[in-house]
Amino acid sequence: MGKLSLDISMSLDGFVAGPDPSLDDPLGRGGDDLHQWAYGAASWQESHGRSGGQANADSDVIAERVESAGATIMGRRMFSGGEGPWEEDPNADAWWGEEPPFGHPVFVLTHHEREPLEKGATTFTFVTDGIESALDQARDAAGDKDVALGGGADVAQQYLRAGLVDEMQIHLAPVFLGGGVRLFEGVGPDVRLELTRVIESPAVTHVRYGVG
Amino acid sequence: MGKLSLDISMSLDGFVAGPDPSLDDPLGRGGDDLHQWAYGAASWQESHGRSGGQANADSDVIAERVESAGATIMGRRMFSGGEGPWEEDPNADAWWGEEPPFGHPVFVLTHHEREPLEKGATTFTFVTDGIESALDQARDAAGDKDVALGGGADVAQQYLRAGLVDEMQIHLAPVFLGGGVRLFEGVGPDVRLELTRVIESPAVTHVRYGVG
Repeated sequence: MGKLSLDISMSLDGFVAGPDPSLDDPLGRGGDDLHQWAYGAASWQESHGRSGGQANADSDVIAERVESAGATIMGRRMFSGGEGPWEEDPNADAWWGEEPPFGHPVFVLTHHEREPLEKGATTFTFVTDGIESALDQARDAAGDKDVALGGGADVAQQYLRAGLVDEMQIHLAPVFLGGGVRLFEGVGPDVRLELTRVIESPAVTHVRYGVG
Repeated sequence: MGKLSLDISMSLDGFVAGPDPSLDDPLGRGGDDLHQWAYGAASWQESHGRSGGQANADSDVIAERVESAGATIMGRRMFSGGEGPWEEDPNADAWWGEEPPFGHPVFVLTHHEREPLEKGATTFTFVTDGIESALDQARDAAGDKDVALGGGADVAQQYLRAGLVDEMQIHLAPVFLGGGVRLFEGVGPDVRLELTRVIESPAVTHVRYGVG
């Protein structure tokens, strides 16, 4: 059975999104800076259906993740945006566009039932009966591969507190956001970490932990 | 002129001390876990007048710091403890013992005037006229060497917000404290970081930044 692996970019002061998120600026003020390391990477461009980008350590980290993950779990806001169109229109399309960069089944945690949504090679399935159900379904879909836990912070915290996360890779961005959404709010010392790998690039530090 | 360099251990959730500090437990609940990486290192033992310990990457990081620093700045609580004896007795000795591990001049930021205190090879000078004065005095004392900014968090934040920190090395400990004193509270995106070096060890990740 594959691991449940949280893979997420965080500012040095602990935020995964900046203050004042909006539809135009879903990651909040400065939030996009957390992901700059990825945008220039060849494997990021490729997973978004483009060519170009640099073949560097950051690109290898992304490629490894793309290959190892057989399914993704995400929260509703990561599916349809911070204060997105979901509330107004539960059938709103995902902001991931017509060719989402997953290419494997995605399970979206939500309180609103909805039929599965097919977009290119990605099927979004909406799970209303909790995090364990989403994990079971994602594991079934992933087979021997890992299940990627994408975020946001609230979903990551729920899985961490429930002791269900096996591995965590934090992309520690050299920025301060000064406010916004904290990744580890409400996560305490009973979640134990073991440092398993560090990959350095000029843009970001990729730190991997076993979680127990 | 040497750099002002902040060198401090932080939990993955951003704390430099845990909840509920006391005289018996000045780093708060779990706070001591942040420093486990150092205690077993040969150069840490040596700087504390002992022998033994391991010659490893962590030890090299400490040795580099010991050699490069010609003076240290710290806050009053780092000098005499969290809720320490200072308030009851302004002449209380430092909790650093008779042979403090500095071996160079230390400047303590405080609101209470006090005569300099000599302990072994370390002289503590008490500075009541603010962070810039402390930095001037420390730079004079350090000559060509760096000035180490030891903490606590409030002192680090004052220097960061004033734009006076040149370099920062965070020892990112693989622990969650879940509460306590946040290192970067009130530090915002106008403090710019440049990732300059990462050193990995099994116990901790040493991440160094240029600060601008």
